[in-house]
Amino acid sequence: MLPIDQSQKDVLKQLKKIHRLDQKYSNGKILCSMSTKPHPIAKRAYEMFFETNLGDSGLFLGAAQLEKEVIDQLGSLLNNKGATGFLVSGGTEANLMALLAARNMKKVKEPEVVLAESAHFSFSKICNLLNIEPVYADLDSSFRVVPVEVENKITENTVAIVGTAGTAELGIIDPIDKLSNIARKHDIWLHVDAAFGGLIVPFLAQPRMPFDFSLAGVKSITVDPHKMGMAAIPTGGILFKDKTPLNFIKTQTPYLTEKNQYTFVGTRTGASAASAWAVFKLLGIDGFKKTVTTCIENSQLIAKGLRRLGFKLVVEPELNLLAFKSENTKGLTVKMAKRGWFISYVPRYDCIRIVVMPHVKRKHVLAFLRDLEAEKL
Amino acid sequence: MLPIDQSQKDVLKQLKKIHRLDQKYSNGKILCSMSTKPHPIAKRAYEMFFETNLGDSGLFLGAAQLEKEVIDQLGSLLNNKGATGFLVSGGTEANLMALLAARNMKKVKEPEVVLAESAHFSFSKICNLLNIEPVYADLDSSFRVVPVEVENKITENTVAIVGTAGTAELGIIDPIDKLSNIARKHDIWLHVDAAFGGLIVPFLAQPRMPFDFSLAGVKSITVDPHKMGMAAIPTGGILFKDKTPLNFIKTQTPYLTEKNQYTFVGTRTGASAASAWAVFKLLGIDGFKKTVTTCIENSQLIAKGLRRLGFKLVVEPELNLLAFKSENTKGLTVKMAKRGWFISYVPRYDCIRIVVMPHVKRKHVLAFLRDLEAEKL
Repeated sequence: MLPIDQSQKDVLKQLKKIHRLDQKYSNGKILCSMSTKPHPIAKRAYEMFFETNLGDSGLFLGAAQLEKEVIDQLGSLLNNKGATGFLVSGGTEANLMALLAARNMKKVKEPEVVLAESAHFSFSKICNLLNIEPVYADLDSSFRVVPVEVENKITENTVAIVGTAGTAELGIIDPIDKLSNIARKHDIWLHVDAAFGGLIVPFLAQPRMPFDFSLAGVKSITVDPHKMGMAAIPTGGILFKDKTPLNFIKTQTPYLTEKNQYTFVGTRTGASAASAWAVFKLLGIDGFKKTVTTCIENSQLIAKGLRRLGFKLVVEPELNLLAFKSENTKGLTVKMAKRGWFISYVPRYDCIRIVVMPHVKRKHVLAFLRDLEAEKL
Repeated sequence: MLPIDQSQKDVLKQLKKIHRLDQKYSNGKILCSMSTKPHPIAKRAYEMFFETNLGDSGLFLGAAQLEKEVIDQLGSLLNNKGATGFLVSGGTEANLMALLAARNMKKVKEPEVVLAESAHFSFSKICNLLNIEPVYADLDSSFRVVPVEVENKITENTVAIVGTAGTAELGIIDPIDKLSNIARKHDIWLHVDAAFGGLIVPFLAQPRMPFDFSLAGVKSITVDPHKMGMAAIPTGGILFKDKTPLNFIKTQTPYLTEKNQYTFVGTRTGASAASAWAVFKLLGIDGFKKTVTTCIENSQLIAKGLRRLGFKLVVEPELNLLAFKSENTKGLTVKMAKRGWFISYVPRYDCIRIVVMPHVKRKHVLAFLRDLEAEKL
């Protein structure tokens, strides 16, 4: 550490220099992330609530009100005005809280959870933590989980089934309606990981199959405002169908302004709530529809270009996420990386994965296709 | 949600109105929190790195460098330049990572952890998650855990011992040196929860007993820059003595710019690292010493005032945290709350708890004592 007489200006100058090593979303070169540049209003709101702490909400009644309003809005959007929930650090904490509730409510000695092969890697983290055995069900040729495979994996030890609305690798929506029927039939918790898709599907021009609380079997949903909600990191969301599970995930707090805590994380910035709230207020349903429509249009533009160039799409894109192959997919990833493009190579499907977030504009899409064509020649 | 034509100005105006419901640290009335107003440089640094994500660090090499440098600085400060670690969401995640590593390294069927009665409530959350049985050891009359009690609780199933440097309720430092000897003797992981004390003890004018990696038994330390480090929430820290445990807490990532993830939280803002880095750079060791000295002086001023007014201190304060009793402690808490003071009533010890963070100035201390005297009369 340096002596105290170093001025703030100097420190900020050093930081600025180091910050040059970071990629910027606005360059349009990041095509591998479900994060995006937060909306300008999200940043302003975040700054205003910078010192607030939702982990001690009796001190910060304003921030607490914003959290409640954001949860209510997410509940309405996902067809359950009575949903209860929390803004958390992200999808991992949200998924953890859902599986913790499911595990603690159904006390079995050797708990299992039935997951699609395509479930997010956070579930393997969570199963390790919670001592739950993950049991994987196969996908069909369109990379959706096969409902009968899920049903066949259910045992007396199954505490939950997990479906995904917008898988991380291919952007696929599992047949949540069928999973809901299975969950009801066997009286098992159905959790929907809509960390990515939860703020896309409700705004699509072409309605998709229901994936939310409109299905009676859905007990909890993960939906992250810091992905397609353009809120600041950290703003994840967990919604429960009703308050019943809260009793099974609560921890008593001996000295805070609230008596119980339900989230995994204790101290939580209220600035997250403010950032999500501000984007919702400013954009409204119409604004979100516009953003989602643009992302989908840009995705379709890429899909069209890929087909024209002779690449093979792994699956017809459902959301603003594409996956494609070439003769030498891994080699192509390296070549495109040399041209400055950040794209993911997914070993499991030997494909390149592209996420078309709001920071990716039409001009970036066209530049990407031009570079792809140049590499193809 | 409102229609799209609502201007950003309007949204910010609404937010400002709601924000009036939040307490402000600068009013000096918050005496119940281990959070504080982030240092102004922390806010500036946070804003600069606002869009970075340490969960995809290949995109954000600058933020990743800052995280590494902050961990290195914390390691030096805690007497282990070779420490490895991460900036995480807070003390809960840090404590989780330590116990997860300890549990996964010592594969026993029914794992137990030996904790002081005074251990932070996050451990009961974590034990619930990890299916670890918490076994509590008694405290002595100065509210430190009794080493022989800890040793007596050790069984074949014990995966870790936890000591605290700065307990949340009384600010007490456990005899970590003795716990270290016990840990070495029985070859058991010793984790030190120094979420609060880790950035106080190294800067005290009067050196305390060692509590850090200078003790050979200490395997991991929680230390939160977002408490006495004046960084922004969320900036917790977990340090491991060496890299060995990393293999036991890693999760493979199939599509990110990094191959493995070690933290519980996936997407993590790099702004946290920037905020902690900036405060360290600006203040340096001398600046931290000055801040800590002022907090301790203000605490001693309160202690003196309490004694003069005839209140009984629960224990001689070791850090900038005090606890005291009156004839009707709970009643006094309510009366002081009516005068606008945010203080905690701790049922376990029937005491009032006061944390004297950097936002609490001498004038606030004097005003608090005046109000206390008025209520006493």
